Amino acid sequence: MSEDELPDIRALRDGDALEAALRRIGALRYHIRHPFHRLLHGGKLRKGQVQAWALNRYLYQSRIPMKDAALIARCPDPALRREWLQRILDHDGTAEQEGGIERWLRLCEGLGLDRDYVRSEVGALPATRFAVEAYVRFVRERSLLEAVASSLTELFAPAIHEERIPGMLAGYPFVTDAMMGYFRKRLGQAPRDAGFALAYVKEHADTAEKREAVCRALLFKCDVLWAQLDALHHAYVLNGGIPPGAFVPEELRGTARAA
Amino acid sequence: MSEDELPDIRALRDGDALEAALRRIGALRYHIRHPFHRLLHGGKLRKGQVQAWALNRYLYQSRIPMKDAALIARCPDPALRREWLQRILDHDGTAEQEGGIERWLRLCEGLGLDRDYVRSEVGALPATRFAVEAYVRFVRERSLLEAVASSLTELFAPAIHEERIPGMLAGYPFVTDAMMGYFRKRLGQAPRDAGFALAYVKEHADTAEKREAVCRALLFKCDVLWAQLDALHHAYVLNGGIPPGAFVPEELRGTARAA
Repeated sequence: MSEDELPDIRALRDGDALEAALRRIGALRYHIRHPFHRLLHGGKLRKGQVQAWALNRYLYQSRIPMKDAALIARCPDPALRREWLQRILDHDGTAEQEGGIERWLRLCEGLGLDRDYVRSEVGALPATRFAVEAYVRFVRERSLLEAVASSLTELFAPAIHEERIPGMLAGYPFVTDAMMGYFRKRLGQAPRDAGFALAYVKEHADTAEKREAVCRALLFKCDVLWAQLDALHHAYVLNGGIPPGAFVPEELRGTARAA
Repeated sequence: MSEDELPDIRALRDGDALEAALRRIGALRYHIRHPFHRLLHGGKLRKGQVQAWALNRYLYQSRIPMKDAALIARCPDPALRREWLQRILDHDGTAEQEGGIERWLRLCEGLGLDRDYVRSEVGALPATRFAVEAYVRFVRERSLLEAVASSLTELFAPAIHEERIPGMLAGYPFVTDAMMGYFRKRLGQAPRDAGFALAYVKEHADTAEKREAVCRALLFKCDVLWAQLDALHHAYVLNGGIPPGAFVPEELRGTARAA
């Protein structure tokens, strides 16, 4: 197997082989490798480009509890439902404790974006919308095993947050420690969620066919994340043209747009 | 209203105001204005880039009859069903008459792509998949009026085909007249389809609210088409990186990929 070749996922013999394949897929396909993240974490973006990222990623964040509720809605197992409910609490928060979406909005505000504009979603890229929608529907319509498996990108999230927090703090004068609250919190939450989901798929994917389906669900999810960064990179970094109607950073307002 | 400003679609007073708004949306948002099409029709692309376009566009073509069947499946009006069925016949063909999908596959083969590879869809960009899926679901789930309205990009299709046929024939030594069969056929079909759909929405959008919904459906559809070209432009023209797993043109095989 060459360095960037995917493992053969068609005949994984047991849970350990499945786990090894999943970790290999993450190493090759998780969006930590995307050029946009390299720029973001390396302090190479202008403020308007960081704003575009936060604004589009908000759309993704905003749908995660709906995705998680869709999973709970079709799950006959109270133990799995109980476990999964924690994700909704983490994201939406409670009366006493703010959630991840609120932390993300504070990041957006810290970047100088208007909260209501972000929440209106009007400035998000259509490609973000299509990718996020595809994810929610995947969880709603595929098997419960595949729905759980599509969350397994969380296995690789701590590495990205550990790179992002110091990278963004060092790279951008307009980023403060308080704005990194979302990522800090996820450093604790993601391993717990991912550990549960990994154990679940190892236990329940009890045929080679199911193990392959688990791998395909993770590949699909990696595509969902990657496509969002491609769209950002195209519109805001490579000057491929900001699609009509999408967010235009302050530094570009008043100038001709490629589209 | 400045030159590239959308019309106010919130209080269109009648069918004629609706038609004017739809034509204005098309003039501003239809993908004939996308930089990728300017390159394609201007003979500025390499063969591998034209292949990538044909391969991804196949995925879109392949879902059109499913989209049309989804509309018929929820339509209680036999006259509308009869009219709409013609679209499926045009695309899928009959025992006597080949359809648009077959013509598209011949275009792909003429470009040097393997028919089975194209039909397998494995090389398509995830962003293409997400955009196409969003379109099929829109037709399946929104009101019948919005479903019909989302087809109105056909109003603007003849202009793109009239530009494309001579542009590609003049621009590329590897494009032959026979390969343009799909577009020539659509020159006759699209105006008929679009004329019917336009008359339908003008008659059935009998409140300002419905007229706004019709406009939004066309805007959505323009986004679906635009996002597909953005993804192609990013991956194959601006060297933003071909997403892992997607088609790699022959001229790039063996070289390092940005991703």
